[in-house]
Amino acid sequence: MSVPTTSADMTWSGAAAPVIVDAAGESSAARPPSRAYEEVLRKWADVLGTKHVLHDPTTLDRYSRSTLPTSTRPRAVLRPASTQQVRELVVIANTHRVPLYPISRGKNWGYGDACAVTDGQVIVDLSRMNRIVEVNPTLAYAVIEPGVTQQQLYDYLREHDYPLWLDATGAGPDSSIVGNTLERGFGHTPYGNRFQHMAGMEVVLADGTVLNTGFGSYENAQAARVFPAGIGPWLDGLFTQSNLGIVTQMGVWLLPAPPVCQAFAFKVRHERDIEAVVEALRPLRLMDVVRSAVHIANDLRVISARRRYPWELTGGATPLPDDVRRRLQKEAGIGAWNAMGGLYGTRETVAAARKVVRRSLRHLAHVHFFGERKMEFGLRAANLLSRIGLARHFLETIESANSIFQLLRGIPSSEPLKGISWRTKASADGTAADPSDCGVLWLSPVLPMTGSATREILDLVEPIFREFQFEPLITLASVTARALVCVLSVCYDKEDRRDAAQATACYESLFEAVMNHGYVPYRSGIQSMRKLSRRSSVFWDVTRQIKLALDAQQTLAPGRYQPDEEPLL
Amino acid sequence: MSVPTTSADMTWSGAAAPVIVDAAGESSAARPPSRAYEEVLRKWADVLGTKHVLHDPTTLDRYSRSTLPTSTRPRAVLRPASTQQVRELVVIANTHRVPLYPISRGKNWGYGDACAVTDGQVIVDLSRMNRIVEVNPTLAYAVIEPGVTQQQLYDYLREHDYPLWLDATGAGPDSSIVGNTLERGFGHTPYGNRFQHMAGMEVVLADGTVLNTGFGSYENAQAARVFPAGIGPWLDGLFTQSNLGIVTQMGVWLLPAPPVCQAFAFKVRHERDIEAVVEALRPLRLMDVVRSAVHIANDLRVISARRRYPWELTGGATPLPDDVRRRLQKEAGIGAWNAMGGLYGTRETVAAARKVVRRSLRHLAHVHFFGERKMEFGLRAANLLSRIGLARHFLETIESANSIFQLLRGIPSSEPLKGISWRTKASADGTAADPSDCGVLWLSPVLPMTGSATREILDLVEPIFREFQFEPLITLASVTARALVCVLSVCYDKEDRRDAAQATACYESLFEAVMNHGYVPYRSGIQSMRKLSRRSSVFWDVTRQIKLALDAQQTLAPGRYQPDEEPLL
Repeated sequence: MSVPTTSADMTWSGAAAPVIVDAAGESSAARPPSRAYEEVLRKWADVLGTKHVLHDPTTLDRYSRSTLPTSTRPRAVLRPASTQQVRELVVIANTHRVPLYPISRGKNWGYGDACAVTDGQVIVDLSRMNRIVEVNPTLAYAVIEPGVTQQQLYDYLREHDYPLWLDATGAGPDSSIVGNTLERGFGHTPYGNRFQHMAGMEVVLADGTVLNTGFGSYENAQAARVFPAGIGPWLDGLFTQSNLGIVTQMGVWLLPAPPVCQAFAFKVRHERDIEAVVEALRPLRLMDVVRSAVHIANDLRVISARRRYPWELTGGATPLPDDVRRRLQKEAGIGAWNAMGGLYGTRETVAAARKVVRRSLRHLAHVHFFGERKMEFGLRAANLLSRIGLARHFLETIESANSIFQLLRGIPSSEPLKGISWRTKASADGTAADPSDCGVLWLSPVLPMTGSATREILDLVEPIFREFQFEPLITLASVTARALVCVLSVCYDKEDRRDAAQATACYESLFEAVMNHGYVPYRSGIQSMRKLSRRSSVFWDVTRQIKLALDAQQTLAPGRYQPDEEPLL
Repeated sequence: MSVPTTSADMTWSGAAAPVIVDAAGESSAARPPSRAYEEVLRKWADVLGTKHVLHDPTTLDRYSRSTLPTSTRPRAVLRPASTQQVRELVVIANTHRVPLYPISRGKNWGYGDACAVTDGQVIVDLSRMNRIVEVNPTLAYAVIEPGVTQQQLYDYLREHDYPLWLDATGAGPDSSIVGNTLERGFGHTPYGNRFQHMAGMEVVLADGTVLNTGFGSYENAQAARVFPAGIGPWLDGLFTQSNLGIVTQMGVWLLPAPPVCQAFAFKVRHERDIEAVVEALRPLRLMDVVRSAVHIANDLRVISARRRYPWELTGGATPLPDDVRRRLQKEAGIGAWNAMGGLYGTRETVAAARKVVRRSLRHLAHVHFFGERKMEFGLRAANLLSRIGLARHFLETIESANSIFQLLRGIPSSEPLKGISWRTKASADGTAADPSDCGVLWLSPVLPMTGSATREILDLVEPIFREFQFEPLITLASVTARALVCVLSVCYDKEDRRDAAQATACYESLFEAVMNHGYVPYRSGIQSMRKLSRRSSVFWDVTRQIKLALDAQQTLAPGRYQPDEEPLL
């Protein structure tokens, strides 16, 4: 990772005639390309058309951008439109030993965006493959290509009046459902553990073979989208968090729109109360009274989603002084920890669950329940009041709650992403910046869902944030009934070199600390792929053996979840 | 598969001194063994002790028994007691190119019991590895070895008064939890989709390496048993329905004992009603009102669990004449289809779910709900009545219902296995036979959970059963919310050669029919491993590439879920 990302002009130059270059950066763009590489580019252009084989500096700049302090620069960008084109371009790459790095929409914020793990790989951008191949309303699933965004599937379901919800994550409306599922991302509905709610992949392997997983491997299979495991070894897991194939199609289960969906929300005053919150929520998750992840955010994380860092109040200093933190928390009307979850079902079952939730949390907090009508009413009232200058904070609060309420109902929202511009000075005017203009590193260790583990990890990471002058922006999400994923955001100002360097140091220190204590992250950004094997050798050895069996030339995404491999470049 | 199984003496001769033979069958037991093989046996004996390296004819007879018309005969049986012993014996086998076939408890009824796919493999019987390594009551999981049986874990949880339930299958109290989970078996509780409720495997690979999957690959991992996927490619699926490793330990999630568990049961009168039943149940499963598999059995399957074939009523003829079938159905007080499922939760949530279930099925059937108290009362009353010669059928009915009710509550039961002796004449006295004395072939195609698919598959298979003079013993289980697993039992009399031959022909014909129509089975017995690749080549090619990467010598279970490979023997 060598190229500091810039905020340069992002105009899309996809239509420009390809300029054949043999260089990773602009500085060397004038160097003549090798004859062999020129031939590869020509072959790709034969398959895709010249306008979908890009290597002009503006495009390469664009694909080098990321929220990380440093990112990587591709050698070219290919934009196939079909599985057949992917096959052909992979065969060419494999023959000529050019490494390819597939991305779905490139919105892997905080983990490297659209960037490959190393410089000089050729990005295979699958965003043109955005067909919704099938929606089955009876069996409640869709078959989609990797370019399909959350918003696109959402709109499609509404347009066709299907009573089906997708699972929505906070990665924004433009993010890829397939891409996020392959990274084993998680959302807010009962189908939030996304990989557990998919059925059947179409995968292009490094030799151009097309593999259909599960029952889909049988030409006439009837149950390919309803029974994921199929028969024989369950291969699908191999193509998540890996570099073993390019997934070109996937079945995703959709949630039948429940007659009733209610959100519940509560806050606790003291930071130390988090232990009791986790202890109280675990039985609710274990008993399946609450069937979706509960998301718990600390005060700073909530504040960061609503406003930028208050430079004016701190005189430009970081990290946020305690008194300012308390003031902002009070102004925002939030607690030290703030939790939100959803209840789904019929009128009867939701009413019953509501009783149990209220009873289980009674000793800790007053639990607010709200459905669609209450939320709409609140929004309207808050808007009216704010027009006459009143209750502006109430409007903020209810808008912020509404964005999570939308996610609970499978409606994509860009609100949760706002937090990543927390320390971005340039955007202090409040306009929604493109996420890749912002500085954020995400680290997401997993812990058992117990109060004591929660205490331990917080005590571990909070001093590190402070040491490097950042604010601990923290969420906890009960992705399984037994585990919390803790998402740590290191937000920094990308225009400030010192801040960026500090952010890297802070991330490294956090990574060391959580790994040393056995809180391994559930996914990795390109910033830490190489460190994954430090305390785990056999697993990565086995993974490498499988890689060599399926992709001996290391054509696909070298270095991706492959800590010990030197990529062929 | 060449050896007709026998009902010969099953005395366990584990303590006998090993006789070194180099033969697959008794007939050739006198042939002198090769020097090389003798050396292998000696090395194994050094590791395990001579009494755990068995190859006397009685032992080999015992391990050759199965419910199938033909089975396979091992060359020897090894009984390791620890992961370290497994490693060592695998390294020896790998060095000397002797194929090993691991079994957990060998209770793979209907699919080959303890038998390898081909003759002459060396069985690695893991039943001595029966430690319950850990039970975590807070996070509700256990870590167990493959020898742990359903009954053993059940007893352990009760003895220690843990408020935790295991998932129970109908494979009987003595069957292995790990073995069944690796075959992706399913049980009756909300954790019935067993592979979705495990976390972390320890696997011995063909070169003796010990792989820990998921976060368990990190030496100090905190979340290894609570977040199955870990980081990097999710490898666990590779070790299910495969021959890629020997699983020596597994984390299994346990269901926190719900405050309330109620069963619901209903029957429909006409065979054609099954379509409406499936259509009514699908929304209940999709909405998670019913969170566990609903098991639906036809009249014959219920009758077969309660009594043997009524030879006396048919004058020895098969298949069962329609009038006798109707008479038995009426006597048993059952419907053409009979369904049973469970509701789990608090008092409030179960009451709410009960309302929704009743409402959803109102147009079809009267739904009976019963909990522990009602069941105990019924059993006591029926016992009293039967003592004075009354209500014997009622007792049978309630006992049979109780056995399923037990499974719903995670209590292992041997009742569901009784059905496999349906056509076994020798056991007509009603004593519980050892399952491997009985004749049954199981075939379990998967279908989308729709009325029309259900109709299609029934219309496909029922005439085939009749054609070969067997009764269609059929269950349907909604293992996912979108799919039914249809279990077809071909029950025959193992002592009757003609019947056994007919059973094989019937099975083959059923297999062809379901495969031709795209209803692929969710698992395979040793009787059909070789046919799995007929309409699916790429999948099995990729599987073979992975096999070659991890076990180039084909030391582990050659032929198991590996249709195109000629085993090295």
